[in-house]
Amino acid sequence: MTARMTASEIDAFLREAFPHGAPPTVEAADGRTARCRIRYAESQLRPGGTLSGPTMMSLADTAMYALVLSAIGFQPLAVTTNLSINFLRKPAPADLIADCRLLKLGKALAVGDVTITSDGAEAPCAHAVVTYSIPPAGRGAAGGA
Amino acid sequence: MTARMTASEIDAFLREAFPHGAPPTVEAADGRTARCRIRYAESQLRPGGTLSGPTMMSLADTAMYALVLSAIGFQPLAVTTNLSINFLRKPAPADLIADCRLLKLGKALAVGDVTITSDGAEAPCAHAVVTYSIPPAGRGAAGGA
Amino acid sequence: MTARMTASEIDAFLREAFPHGAPPTVEAADGRTARCRIRYAESQLRPGGTLSGPTMMSLADTAMYALVLSAIGFQPLAVTTNLSINFLRKPAPADLIADCRLLKLGKALAVGDVTITSDGAEAPCAHAVVTYSIPPAGRGAAGGA
Amino acid sequence: MTARMTASEIDAFLREAFPHGAPPTVEAADGRTARCRIRYAESQLRPGGTLSGPTMMSLADTAMYALVLSAIGFQPLAVTTNLSINFLRKPAPADLIADCRLLKLGKALAVGDVTITSDGAEAPCAHAVVTYSIPPAGRGAAGGA
Repeated sequence: MTARMTASEIDAFLREAFPHGAPPTVEAADGRTARCRIRYAESQLRPGGTLSGPTMMSLADTAMYALVLSAIGFQPLAVTTNLSINFLRKPAPADLIADCRLLKLGKALAVGDVTITSDGAEAPCAHAVVTYSIPPAGRGAAGGA
Repeated sequence: MTARMTASEIDAFLREAFPHGAPPTVEAADGRTARCRIRYAESQLRPGGTLSGPTMMSLADTAMYALVLSAIGFQPLAVTTNLSINFLRKPAPADLIADCRLLKLGKALAVGDVTITSDGAEAPCAHAVVTYSIPPAGRGAAGGA
Repeated sequence: MTARMTASEIDAFLREAFPHGAPPTVEAADGRTARCRIRYAESQLRPGGTLSGPTMMSLADTAMYALVLSAIGFQPLAVTTNLSINFLRKPAPADLIADCRLLKLGKALAVGDVTITSDGAEAPCAHAVVTYSIPPAGRGAAGGA
Repeated sequence: MTARMTASEIDAFLREAFPHGAPPTVEAADGRTARCRIRYAESQLRPGGTLSGPTMMSLADTAMYALVLSAIGFQPLAVTTNLSINFLRKPAPADLIADCRLLKLGKALAVGDVTITSDGAEAPCAHAVVTYSIPPAGRGAAGGA
């Protein structure tokens, strides 16, 4: 499968679409997998000194969004329908990396799982499963069931 | 059940703990239910003009945190272990209100569900189920399995 | 909303469709809610003497199926796309009752949550959120997003 | 990590514990991964000719149970606290194989994900994430958070 949007195209789109925030960097996206990174920043810490859960949820969501865009092309209206995340370990004081893997690209839904790891660590901090709804305009791109 | 922390105590704690952010307002918390509100703000919009998914995930997480603190008292190290959210409808351009209901308060885990609604609307925008792990110091407060 | 299939019609259909099993009884279904019951039976016990998790998962799934059929009419090909269940308490040695509530009936997806309780008990044994995909033939019945 | 129970020990235990049912076969279990198989059988078909969702939920649950027993030793009272499954594709008329991978083995909780595939197929039919609670007696075996 060839990517219909490259990682750098997706990254530029995210930066334009969310000018007020600091979206994760899209480091790779090939229509089957995607990798995003979020910089360690003290403003995202929660009591106890760990990176916040919402930071990881947002990162997982963005990694799947990047994967979907790389698979079906520019369809900004693809939206999350379900996100389920397990927080597994306290992150290290380091960048977080999200590796997303496509489980299904159907006509109407795309499902992927995301493993989030502190940069340099081996054991994951969090694991999420994310479902996106594909808008009708993007369905030509999807392979089927 | 009497609340071990009141809504205004929890609200003050959140504002102190997250000085860089704009945490939701805790409007009610009684050890069995909690209600939080997040103000409508354009900076949280995503492409398509809806409030962002991460905003709703963060709101659901905070509503359960408020419920847990009201149930077991000041235990800031209570942490989310699982959050599963379904996005149901595009939110209206309005505040979002999260109503959280306790499903279980065990020795080690607390489970609740959260219904998120646009202020003034009837049908929910999102529904989440959230599990918190209760630190050993807070377990005396919990009633059992 | 009027039910497009009644509880007894759905119940008869389940009994015909699953002749080898013992499907739950559909006690109520009105297009917005549904209630199913499964009889206590020793063959479903797991080590520790509790009713098995799979029994409760199957019950939650059937309760949402009954709700969907009551909402959209006879569409046997409606299929589960996601089921997420939290096991909360050891069930009592009694029938299990599942109360399902519609959270969304869209064109393509229906989402509901299910609370499972031992007959006579107050606190729930399990809570599930279930998503069904509605086949194109059933979409005329659904009200919209 | 060495398995504290072998696949054949776990398999024998399941057959003894569930004499009325037909539990999946445990084909492998090494404390980090486990593989279970369920035979294709017409009695588990649902309308539309597919293997039933409950069959796959039960298979995912058993695969994680086998993994937990191989990791912590004989602790039959380990219980599922959460199971979240996405149904991805209609299974083929063939055996189903569940491959389970450990994501976390903590003192109190074990989390793993399970990929279910029809024997001979490549794309998964279902993907689940399963959390088990480890009884206090089994916690000595677990490595930590």
